[in-house]
Amino acid sequence: MTSVGIDAVEIRTGKLRLDLPETFAPAQGDDPGKYTKGLGLTASSFPDVYEDIVTMGANAAHALMERKGLEPEDIGRIDVATESAFDNSKPVSTYIAGCLEQVYDGDFHHANKGERKFACISGTQSLDDAYNWIRAGRNRGRAALVIATDTALYARDDPGEATQGAGAVALLVTEDPDVVELSTEQGYGSADETDFLKPQQQFPSVDGKRSVQVYLSRMREAIEDFESVTEPIHPDDFAFIPFHTPFPGMVRKAAALGYRHASRDTEIEERLADEIGRQPRYEAFDSEEAFREAAADYTDDLTDTDLYREWYAETVEPTLTISREVGNWYTGSVHVARISALKAAAEDGVDLAGEKLLVGSYGSGAQAEIHAETVQSGWEDEIAALDVDEQLDARYELTFDEYEDVHDVHNHDEDAGASDTDQFTAPEQEFVFDGWGRMGERKYIYVE
Amino acid sequence: MTSVGIDAVEIRTGKLRLDLPETFAPAQGDDPGKYTKGLGLTASSFPDVYEDIVTMGANAAHALMERKGLEPEDIGRIDVATESAFDNSKPVSTYIAGCLEQVYDGDFHHANKGERKFACISGTQSLDDAYNWIRAGRNRGRAALVIATDTALYARDDPGEATQGAGAVALLVTEDPDVVELSTEQGYGSADETDFLKPQQQFPSVDGKRSVQVYLSRMREAIEDFESVTEPIHPDDFAFIPFHTPFPGMVRKAAALGYRHASRDTEIEERLADEIGRQPRYEAFDSEEAFREAAADYTDDLTDTDLYREWYAETVEPTLTISREVGNWYTGSVHVARISALKAAAEDGVDLAGEKLLVGSYGSGAQAEIHAETVQSGWEDEIAALDVDEQLDARYELTFDEYEDVHDVHNHDEDAGASDTDQFTAPEQEFVFDGWGRMGERKYIYVE
Repeated sequence: MTSVGIDAVEIRTGKLRLDLPETFAPAQGDDPGKYTKGLGLTASSFPDVYEDIVTMGANAAHALMERKGLEPEDIGRIDVATESAFDNSKPVSTYIAGCLEQVYDGDFHHANKGERKFACISGTQSLDDAYNWIRAGRNRGRAALVIATDTALYARDDPGEATQGAGAVALLVTEDPDVVELSTEQGYGSADETDFLKPQQQFPSVDGKRSVQVYLSRMREAIEDFESVTEPIHPDDFAFIPFHTPFPGMVRKAAALGYRHASRDTEIEERLADEIGRQPRYEAFDSEEAFREAAADYTDDLTDTDLYREWYAETVEPTLTISREVGNWYTGSVHVARISALKAAAEDGVDLAGEKLLVGSYGSGAQAEIHAETVQSGWEDEIAALDVDEQLDARYELTFDEYEDVHDVHNHDEDAGASDTDQFTAPEQEFVFDGWGRMGERKYIYVE
Repeated sequence: MTSVGIDAVEIRTGKLRLDLPETFAPAQGDDPGKYTKGLGLTASSFPDVYEDIVTMGANAAHALMERKGLEPEDIGRIDVATESAFDNSKPVSTYIAGCLEQVYDGDFHHANKGERKFACISGTQSLDDAYNWIRAGRNRGRAALVIATDTALYARDDPGEATQGAGAVALLVTEDPDVVELSTEQGYGSADETDFLKPQQQFPSVDGKRSVQVYLSRMREAIEDFESVTEPIHPDDFAFIPFHTPFPGMVRKAAALGYRHASRDTEIEERLADEIGRQPRYEAFDSEEAFREAAADYTDDLTDTDLYREWYAETVEPTLTISREVGNWYTGSVHVARISALKAAAEDGVDLAGEKLLVGSYGSGAQAEIHAETVQSGWEDEIAALDVDEQLDARYELTFDEYEDVHDVHNHDEDAGASDTDQFTAPEQEFVFDGWGRMGERKYIYVE
């Protein structure tokens, strides 16, 4: 069976940076540690006044096509995953294709364009659609372009405000991919949950505590469902475990639970038994509550062991590096985590080819998906070609007053719009927002 | 290769009916023929105050599952296609799964749930995703549930007001289907168009004239793209040609152009040559405009021939019967056209098994898709099990004043909401809207 997976990746961060400990915390009267230690975040990315989900997505896709020497003719499918759409009918993918057609001779009239929405998980759902399309023999030798793009804003002073972020990830999905092959096997954990909603509104209503519980419950179900079609997962099976990262602190919780689950009945539990005892078993308790308490205690002890700390430092920590600097990119988040891990391995000179990743995607509302990926031999060249650090370093550093203006610019309910606030950076060789057309459509041009 | 396609279908119409010639035309001061002859429409369906895209979709899915004896365990995927979503993050499929879980012992935690948006074409895109998922070997023997559900409202006094409609179609997608097998081959015609938008608004902004041109242009491209991977299409290859039907008059135009295209260089052109001459050839004209004029004249003459009229009456007219009575259901429309055609064949006692359909889907913004379907031997039993006529006949007949109230009830910008207007019909054995929860989520219950 031909392998199908991710052949190339690109990211485009919003070009503005808000420092959380230095700028946001003092203005909110908060201890900086609330953000750096509690959430695990240092900064958020925001779009400049001429950026939005279309420009970030189109610029990521353009960079990817240029690097791979692709023409529109080579792309058979453009799917956009977003929960920041600005039109209830016309998909963002058509706007992005329109942008790209400004700079290529050919067009994308032959390409199936789509848009998926399911909180943060639709990027992975679109990746799956692309995989299935190729496996179904419908791609005519063409590649799929999957773009996860979001402007993750919260209402001002919402508890989620510190986890904001904005950026896009473009993934090229092909046969015989250079970066990772996807497993046919998938695990799902999906339920009708009211944890995070945007009912006819741009900014989310969030039940923070419930949201954390739902993330962990759905992820547990997805892992169990995945194991039902593969083998039991062992913590040491995977070089990295990129998870959806609303903020790194969330992944810290999920990793501990996942490790506890996966190490049960393994030599790991055995080795740790003298130090922290064996894992509590449900059967041994009189009540659900008593079991949960014992399990939580065990998990606390587990995360203090050297064995766990080493595993976490090697397998999970490297997935969080970019996230700490950019915040939550919603649909792009788990794909940023994958890039973060591969980038760390490349910098450390680790030979990953043939190694496995366990990828855990999640969307509120709520659904988790687990699948495995096998790193391909071309991964290192592909990762080396990225300019992630340069993009992050080039961001404009916002003052708090400027942040307030930028938040208003991207707030659909504020009339001010882009016209009242000057741009902070100068666009160069990129697509930019160019105002509204007569039917309320957003317009874009390419700036040389 | 195992066949994959549609194993079962169900529809749920909005339970209110607005008569266009009798009720709408007089109130607007219009000639009834503007609607019945120009648009080809007799009535529109509207949701009662306790109905919406979730209830219509869940009720269609529930009826389908009951008839086929399915449990949640049998469904591996629930995808909803809509351009009437009421949340910018949480997908409608989670609400529908939540409804269904109220009436089944099992749950859908194992099922991948999604939502697609691309004007009216996303129903077909979701059908394709389901097909590809099965073909990719990822379905674990489970079926996919695809639900196309929309409340197609326009602003009051908008030219599109007469084409409104509301309803849902549920499709069960499986291996060895009972109704139709889908072709692997597809044709696309897709461009970044500004013909129909909903920029941060519920009701569309429409450029009516452009919208018609774009429909025809994209459909032509899709047919040509389809022919590039199959054989040239011949008008007599297909028992029926279900097209996306914003209103039957649009399909009348598309059918004429499609017939002209497909009959070029065939014995049909030959046979008609004495009567209306040969088709104009682009090469023979000095200007694009002169060619277009000649082609338009030929098309007018063509549609007056007995040969064309007979073909149209047999192949296209039967696809429009339900649409005339319910208006535009957006994502469900082309799937209503398929049901309409199969229902007509069943009523006429035609044996369709093994016959082909050519299905033309379309979404503004804009994209057309063409694929072929082969009718399966179980089609007649499946169609006989539907109660379409009973549903249409049972609708409550609205006065114009009542219509105005109903439009307000479903207008997101009107505060009135469902509470101020009494329901017109009594719900029975169905899911109904039950008010809002504390986070602004919509809640649903099953009424026995």
